[in-house]
Amino acid sequence: MVPSSHPCMRKNFLHSIKIQMAIIAGFVLLSGNFIFAGEMIVYNEPVRPKEQKDVLLLKCEPIPVVRVGFIGIGMRGINAVKRFTHLEGVEIKAFCDMEQYNLDGAQLVLSEANLPKADEYTGNENSWKKLCERDDIDLVYICTDWRTHTPMSVYAMEQGKHVAVEVPAAMTIDECWQLVNTAEKTRRHCMMLENCCYDFFEMATLNMAQQGLFGEIVHVEGAYIHDLRSLNFNERLSEESSYNPGLTPGQGDKQKRPGLSGYYDFWRLKYNQEHNGNAYPTHGLGPVCQILNIHRGDKMDYLVSMSSDQFGMSNYAKDRYGEDSPEAKQVYKMGDMNTTMIKTAKGKTIMIQHDVTSPRPYSRIHTISGTKGFAGKYPTMQLAFEPNAHHSLSKEACDSVVNAYEFPFVTKIKEQAKKVGGHGGMDFIMDYRLIYCLRNGLPLDQDVYDAAEWSCLVELTEVSVRNNSAPVKIPDFTRGAWNKLTGLKLAE
Amino acid sequence: MVPSSHPCMRKNFLHSIKIQMAIIAGFVLLSGNFIFAGEMIVYNEPVRPKEQKDVLLLKCEPIPVVRVGFIGIGMRGINAVKRFTHLEGVEIKAFCDMEQYNLDGAQLVLSEANLPKADEYTGNENSWKKLCERDDIDLVYICTDWRTHTPMSVYAMEQGKHVAVEVPAAMTIDECWQLVNTAEKTRRHCMMLENCCYDFFEMATLNMAQQGLFGEIVHVEGAYIHDLRSLNFNERLSEESSYNPGLTPGQGDKQKRPGLSGYYDFWRLKYNQEHNGNAYPTHGLGPVCQILNIHRGDKMDYLVSMSSDQFGMSNYAKDRYGEDSPEAKQVYKMGDMNTTMIKTAKGKTIMIQHDVTSPRPYSRIHTISGTKGFAGKYPTMQLAFEPNAHHSLSKEACDSVVNAYEFPFVTKIKEQAKKVGGHGGMDFIMDYRLIYCLRNGLPLDQDVYDAAEWSCLVELTEVSVRNNSAPVKIPDFTRGAWNKLTGLKLAE
Repeated sequence: MVPSSHPCMRKNFLHSIKIQMAIIAGFVLLSGNFIFAGEMIVYNEPVRPKEQKDVLLLKCEPIPVVRVGFIGIGMRGINAVKRFTHLEGVEIKAFCDMEQYNLDGAQLVLSEANLPKADEYTGNENSWKKLCERDDIDLVYICTDWRTHTPMSVYAMEQGKHVAVEVPAAMTIDECWQLVNTAEKTRRHCMMLENCCYDFFEMATLNMAQQGLFGEIVHVEGAYIHDLRSLNFNERLSEESSYNPGLTPGQGDKQKRPGLSGYYDFWRLKYNQEHNGNAYPTHGLGPVCQILNIHRGDKMDYLVSMSSDQFGMSNYAKDRYGEDSPEAKQVYKMGDMNTTMIKTAKGKTIMIQHDVTSPRPYSRIHTISGTKGFAGKYPTMQLAFEPNAHHSLSKEACDSVVNAYEFPFVTKIKEQAKKVGGHGGMDFIMDYRLIYCLRNGLPLDQDVYDAAEWSCLVELTEVSVRNNSAPVKIPDFTRGAWNKLTGLKLAE
Repeated sequence: MVPSSHPCMRKNFLHSIKIQMAIIAGFVLLSGNFIFAGEMIVYNEPVRPKEQKDVLLLKCEPIPVVRVGFIGIGMRGINAVKRFTHLEGVEIKAFCDMEQYNLDGAQLVLSEANLPKADEYTGNENSWKKLCERDDIDLVYICTDWRTHTPMSVYAMEQGKHVAVEVPAAMTIDECWQLVNTAEKTRRHCMMLENCCYDFFEMATLNMAQQGLFGEIVHVEGAYIHDLRSLNFNERLSEESSYNPGLTPGQGDKQKRPGLSGYYDFWRLKYNQEHNGNAYPTHGLGPVCQILNIHRGDKMDYLVSMSSDQFGMSNYAKDRYGEDSPEAKQVYKMGDMNTTMIKTAKGKTIMIQHDVTSPRPYSRIHTISGTKGFAGKYPTMQLAFEPNAHHSLSKEACDSVVNAYEFPFVTKIKEQAKKVGGHGGMDFIMDYRLIYCLRNGLPLDQDVYDAAEWSCLVELTEVSVRNNSAPVKIPDFTRGAWNKLTGLKLAE
């Protein structure tokens, strides 16, 4: 394992880099974790232990019936449980949550599906370990808050379990390496649950890219632009019928579970208070990294990141709770809009945005621009190809191309996916693929390097933002193997 | 005047900064022009000569009839001449161009409008000076290639003329300072012809911003995404009926003017061969800088810029002329997609893109995101306001808001503008405003600081790109007066 620097130390060197990096030019060593190379901030790459090999295209023993334990069944988790009741070849063995209310809700989902009760783990902050330690579970499915994703994933893999973990899988570079090293050491799967890779347009454009419709792909864009202010401040809104994906029919209303109406214990709000950069990069980044074959022929080389100041949270809190409220007086370090640019080893560029505090329509952008064609998803679906790329195809022509480039496995399950739901069906397709690959002993669509690469922006963007948008080298989590595979191939 | 460094020197230090900046940390002086401050590349700011004052809100003597001389009447210029025949209170006195063909075309425009012939200047590369030296001209209107904009503008101001100059007004930081210093010294207007500031949606969103509809504006975006490949390579396409805005009815077809079908002497293609970064930033930047009140209460503080590698030109040349053609073998240093991020002194962010080689629909983006509302223009017009900003207004509601926030001067002339044309009318509105302000002795809508600020990205983005996207400080061309005015007010 890579030695983990204490979180407080990390915060200290973030603040001190400005001073330290000016002391000696050339290569300046900072806190043993990253260096400023005059032109670029570079992190040290931990040497791979001799006994480890990479886990590219990792195949494990087929698992005819995948036995699953869920950790965190509040907002996202309860919906995952519901989806799993519709999957063949799974057995829901156990639930873990801090709140009995959530456990009751999940059991209700099982009984409504005529499935046996699952075992329950709760009571303290380490209850989840007991779930991981069971010997009759194959897969641990983690839907907790961001801070616990990596510790839980690492522990589960160390107990011999495969892991599916919500986004981002890791919040620091150190955590990214923990995931990679643990997966390599234990030879277990660690798939980040990047559901947006499975949305219909994203899947179709991946197929189009692989078939060459865009020519050489030059530039891509993604984003997470989603006004989450009411969700972040949700507890004070208990009288109102605000958006709450955690509520499902039969589970009662918010008055019955005070304090649980938004993110558990305001974990997201608290993160906004302490951090800057792009804290949630993977929804936009995942689909475009797949399209660019990142660590399958190309790699992200360096990034620069810029955040606006924070206006939105304070403004909202003032309007909602008054100028003198604690919410309005609170400092939120997270700037409203973060824009990050990434250059790849093969000379492509990626632009990624994050804004969860501005009143504007939802967008993940999803733009692909190549030498032969163009695609964009928000605010309206666009496809344009040579020699008439000055104009987008009509809505009808777009739909027809998207249908024509549907992956066969999407065609097979899309009706069921739309019926079961989960962001229009993509969540179900994701779960379906995860279980399909595990049952057939196939490599998963997303491996641990994807999880690390897409998540590493959390820390790297913050470091760049805190240093006047200085360029930051992106670690190669494959440690030299990024060019070994030729393109992403989804297992069949 | 600021001493001008030789262009070759500039290129040399661009290449050498990587090495030099690593030698000594802290503040390293480079070629007397910019320094690398460890964290940021900073240009020296030339001291304002004692006899000079700023030209903020510059008012000059009213000119009842504005006498105009045009330099460069090929592609853009001929259309300007046509628009001027529809303006009241102007007299077209003189034309200058390298090609008799263009002079004939412009005279034809005058005769069709029943106007007297203009005097002609041609014959050598200094003919334009004679036009500037006339004592019966008030305004020199410059539509030449990029390289000649600043020398012509400076010379015209030194001859006591007001200047209107095509975009970008300057191609280097040194040229930006030349424009500023000459305008301050001569007390003449120097307006860059940023026509996109006058498009209907841009004007309406400026008004909305000024009326507070977006709340505090946090983030804005602009772009110039326009596939110009066929125009850049145009001479070889003389058999085809490709896009050529320079051709007007009555002027004959391309076969009759060989070598003039694209950009004169391939000046744009040649620039692409030698430079990188965002060579043409002002169409996207101008409108959003007006909305952010740049140098009228805020200023652009620093930028980072990233370019993809070049794929598009080579790919196109190969397809068009064959693998072994000189066009395909030529090196083009200009990356296909450039993305630049700018932070302002008040904590806002600006994202600007440039791509003239990718097959995709035209876009200038024009996004405005604030604490109360949102606007976007491409690919479809979007307006969204609190408390329902999750959804854009319908097309009908958008149109109605845009109409309601039309500036009075737009309402007054829009019918004529649409009839006269020029990118749908915006070019005519721009000319109308220029002449209106000159005739009434009012400050122009765009001053020389706008010209310098919007143009300075040409060099600054290139410097950033060549140094791994390192942050570059943006000069304060007002030299301390950026916070003197409170907002942009278009003169009435």
